[in-house]
Amino acid sequence: MDTIVQKYGGTSVGTIDKIKAVAKKVIDRKQKGDNVVVVVSAMGKSTDHLIDMAKQISENPNKREMDMLVSTGEQVSISLLSMAFHEFGFDSVSLTGFQAGIRTEGAHTKNRISDIDIENVKKHLNDGKIVVVAGFQGINENGDITTLGRGGSDTTAVALAAKLKCTCEIYTDVEGIYSVDPRVWPDAKKLDNISYEEMMEMASLGAGVMETRAVEIGCKYKIPIYVASSHGNTKGTYIKEYDETMEGKAITGLSISDDVLMVTVNNVLQNSKNIALVFERLAKYNVNVDMISQTAPFNGYVNVSFTTSKEDEKTIDQITKELKEVIEGIKVSKDSNITKVSVVGIGMMKQAGVAAEIFSIFSDNDIEFKQVTTSEISISYTIDAQDKQKAVTVLAKALNL
Amino acid sequence: MDTIVQKYGGTSVGTIDKIKAVAKKVIDRKQKGDNVVVVVSAMGKSTDHLIDMAKQISENPNKREMDMLVSTGEQVSISLLSMAFHEFGFDSVSLTGFQAGIRTEGAHTKNRISDIDIENVKKHLNDGKIVVVAGFQGINENGDITTLGRGGSDTTAVALAAKLKCTCEIYTDVEGIYSVDPRVWPDAKKLDNISYEEMMEMASLGAGVMETRAVEIGCKYKIPIYVASSHGNTKGTYIKEYDETMEGKAITGLSISDDVLMVTVNNVLQNSKNIALVFERLAKYNVNVDMISQTAPFNGYVNVSFTTSKEDEKTIDQITKELKEVIEGIKVSKDSNITKVSVVGIGMMKQAGVAAEIFSIFSDNDIEFKQVTTSEISISYTIDAQDKQKAVTVLAKALNL
Repeated sequence: MDTIVQKYGGTSVGTIDKIKAVAKKVIDRKQKGDNVVVVVSAMGKSTDHLIDMAKQISENPNKREMDMLVSTGEQVSISLLSMAFHEFGFDSVSLTGFQAGIRTEGAHTKNRISDIDIENVKKHLNDGKIVVVAGFQGINENGDITTLGRGGSDTTAVALAAKLKCTCEIYTDVEGIYSVDPRVWPDAKKLDNISYEEMMEMASLGAGVMETRAVEIGCKYKIPIYVASSHGNTKGTYIKEYDETMEGKAITGLSISDDVLMVTVNNVLQNSKNIALVFERLAKYNVNVDMISQTAPFNGYVNVSFTTSKEDEKTIDQITKELKEVIEGIKVSKDSNITKVSVVGIGMMKQAGVAAEIFSIFSDNDIEFKQVTTSEISISYTIDAQDKQKAVTVLAKALNL
Repeated sequence: MDTIVQKYGGTSVGTIDKIKAVAKKVIDRKQKGDNVVVVVSAMGKSTDHLIDMAKQISENPNKREMDMLVSTGEQVSISLLSMAFHEFGFDSVSLTGFQAGIRTEGAHTKNRISDIDIENVKKHLNDGKIVVVAGFQGINENGDITTLGRGGSDTTAVALAAKLKCTCEIYTDVEGIYSVDPRVWPDAKKLDNISYEEMMEMASLGAGVMETRAVEIGCKYKIPIYVASSHGNTKGTYIKEYDETMEGKAITGLSISDDVLMVTVNNVLQNSKNIALVFERLAKYNVNVDMISQTAPFNGYVNVSFTTSKEDEKTIDQITKELKEVIEGIKVSKDSNITKVSVVGIGMMKQAGVAAEIFSIFSDNDIEFKQVTTSEISISYTIDAQDKQKAVTVLAKALNL
């Protein structure tokens, strides 16, 4: 008897009828003889409703309490789904993060899974139950309820699959992984397979379908991840180990992110301590910094730009205030009208000239970029948000994505 | 520094503004120098909303999952209240039942507190925090989330006070304990004090303000319980140890319950085994039986009546089906158009003739009763629901309540 972990997102369990439909889909699998662990997110917009209430109390609610509040969303969906299994005549048990043994560490609202004590899940599976686990949440060493941050349910699902040494299936509202976001480039091709490494780049660069950390865990433990639509039976995409047959093209996909805040610190007296101060302060406030660029010194002063998530904007304002007190004369500006476009492909490692090709595509089409960064398998550009559609269209056409 | 436990019910935390108002009230107390533990119920109608969703999935939802679902209600209110304390500049922590160390035993949806591991609450109090605890819930020996059933938040509050050896204040939407439910008898008097024993009788007989088990715990550990309105500063009622000064009158109060289902089992062949079978089956299904009466045998057959809660009606139907298979020829009838009226007073123990007085009041006013039961400090009658107002009026007047 095989074990499988299936994950259904918030849209897939957004109504009572949808919960029943998920239950039937899981039961189909169970009846084929598999042990099933189901990970679910909170129902549709319920998390937004909880956050709204918190915002009515405080502009910046205490984060431990925010985790306590928001984690109720999954607790509602797991209990309702488990009731549906019982109603359809199947034994089932729902488990919150702490009951499923999901230990976390890190800052509230942004925790990471440190380990899973899988015994309770295994015990219930051995009893023949369909085990329903709350995604997105866990418990830290203080016994506080924690959440994993955006996309955390994917991470829960893949981490459980890693512990159970089984495949993880992610059911969502898209039909798989596309070479380009189909909302921006409707001709985008659905991929049958993508390597962990490419998917990680795509995810971290903003492809939106899968959380990077989830793919990272899949990669580390060699757990195949299958991404498909929760409706119907259209074939989805396997995220798995890199395989020579995948390497047809240099570029596998294009990823686009609008959640970019570009921050520029001007007029910094050239002194490595000053630059360090900036990034130490960002780290202290748990701000994830993405692209960093620094101009050559001029008259003893340098400018530093970096990008971060728009949701950190208020924290950036606080940090700016603090920095102005310790670094004399600096000026900080923010630009949120920015899009990041990245090209990703494991084939890039072996094919030269990709960067050159893209620079000339941009140049031919009068697209200016503000920052460029490269990794072994990707190149990212920040551009004006108004150039986004044009950039995606010319790149997708030229690279045949 | 004194410690105090305050409990606020669902109506008192029904909206964000009300949550803020509760926070301010608690802060007033904290600023007077007391350590405060606040126990809260779920916001207003939120529990009903959760139950509605469950009922859309199953007419008879799995009870373990029901506890899992319903317990989210308090988790929402504790986190929001704790956020409000933070917002007003006071350190605070919210704790679910399991985090507050509340161990329970018994059947799901009807658990009892078996013990409280109070260390976590004490630690946070010692750190100067306002500790907000989810009422109504706990965790059982399997690590399942449980609920305490109706009025369970009062029980949580008094049990915490017992462990902390401090007074428990119950803030609610009434101004205290009245001699008679003011909705039925508007001239009812508010009591300054009532003994635990009287309050337990009042509560178990349906007075509705306080849960019996909560008063029982107060009594066992000699914890004074103060019941008052969550709005304003009107003086409430102390529930405390019996004191000679309370004993002015034989009758302290009148309690009325409409949640009565009278079940009559007719045509039972006289045989102690048969009667035992009936009550064994009721016990097996966790049906709480209240008043029991049995007719004298006639032609070798007896009839047995008992009362229970209306919410057990479906369970009674199931039990009836099972009983008919094992006891030949029995007939079972149900009557839910019943009210129970009880007179309560510790003075009854020392004053004779109370029963006689009430029998003659009923007789003078043509009120027929179906069953009578007595305890040391109370006498209860079941009557037709249509006689309720009349019975309450004549008793309240005659007994000067």
